[in-house]
Amino acid sequence: MRERRYSSTSPEHLATALFDVAAESGLGGASVREVAKRAGVSIGAVQHHFSTKDEMFVFALRTLVDKLLMRLKAVDRSGDPARALFSVMSQLLPLDEARSREAHVMAAFAVRAATSPSLAEIRRKTLFTIRTGLSAVLIRIGTPEAETRAALLLATVDGLALDAIGSPSLYPPEYLEHALDIQIAMILQGADLAPSSVELAS
Amino acid sequence: MRERRYSSTSPEHLATALFDVAAESGLGGASVREVAKRAGVSIGAVQHHFSTKDEMFVFALRTLVDKLLMRLKAVDRSGDPARALFSVMSQLLPLDEARSREAHVMAAFAVRAATSPSLAEIRRKTLFTIRTGLSAVLIRIGTPEAETRAALLLATVDGLALDAIGSPSLYPPEYLEHALDIQIAMILQGADLAPSSVELAS
Repeated sequence: MRERRYSSTSPEHLATALFDVAAESGLGGASVREVAKRAGVSIGAVQHHFSTKDEMFVFALRTLVDKLLMRLKAVDRSGDPARALFSVMSQLLPLDEARSREAHVMAAFAVRAATSPSLAEIRRKTLFTIRTGLSAVLIRIGTPEAETRAALLLATVDGLALDAIGSPSLYPPEYLEHALDIQIAMILQGADLAPSSVELAS
Repeated sequence: MRERRYSSTSPEHLATALFDVAAESGLGGASVREVAKRAGVSIGAVQHHFSTKDEMFVFALRTLVDKLLMRLKAVDRSGDPARALFSVMSQLLPLDEARSREAHVMAAFAVRAATSPSLAEIRRKTLFTIRTGLSAVLIRIGTPEAETRAALLLATVDGLALDAIGSPSLYPPEYLEHALDIQIAMILQGADLAPSSVELAS
């Protein structure tokens, strides 16, 4: 069956197609040919925007990260610090179909960053941004070792997501939520949780 | 330059070659052709042992996991529980060149497990084995929520490793060790750390 292919497209449309291919079959399956096919465009239309596969990956990861960081920023942070941290960090856990796909693709990019300096740079900035935001919250409420605990909270969520994407039966959503609750309670040990320090920065 | 290729080999030798290729360029680069080339054998010699790439991956992951679990079992667990847990779990962190390569390849397999049921099954068993071992230790010393905390300790280490492999400058070895120390201290909050409960199961 011959599909109709278009000869022009937008980089955003290609990033979405790449995300869909990667969520189904990993980044290894996200060749220029496959992304073009999924986007319904010619290979030349992809090459018009990205001269290499690495360039295409960089754009796709940046798009994914931008969306994720905007979502984290928009999270309702009302309630006590434990509740607010839970609301933010649970965005990164594979608690539903959409977040499972996202966690899978994010982890795939994290692995590929080990062999791609341009992906590593985006990943480094993303981790730094999230760690800094978490640190600020933990410092404001007087948490001991705030910066290290911030990195640990992020690592725990990244690790739970990694462990869960291949073993969903060992890590069902309720379990992941329970585990995140306990990690946050441990992280907040020794913090000053007075009502006046409830508000988190936006 | 034409290299000399051998027409027979052992699956273990091929698993080592696959590990080397994957540590350098990711699992995406570990095709039958590349593994054969690295092992110095013909493609037919690889196909003699593995009829599909997935079969080759399954054998390689199983070999890697077996080695890792044996190493965890052999770790010197003298000292208090915090020290013993540190000695075991630091095996999974990218603290040196060998463990960085291993952490990278393990994370790559973890991601691929999301789209490969046979790899997922090995990964599930591995996580379960490590979690069960950690739970047993935490239960013995009276740690609250021992099973969840065991899963959290493993997730934290997996997450730190994932965050570090692409961003080694954000996660130098001393930092990873410090973070692991803090996570273990948090995990052990509320445990009965009396000297009589120092000994860990082997």
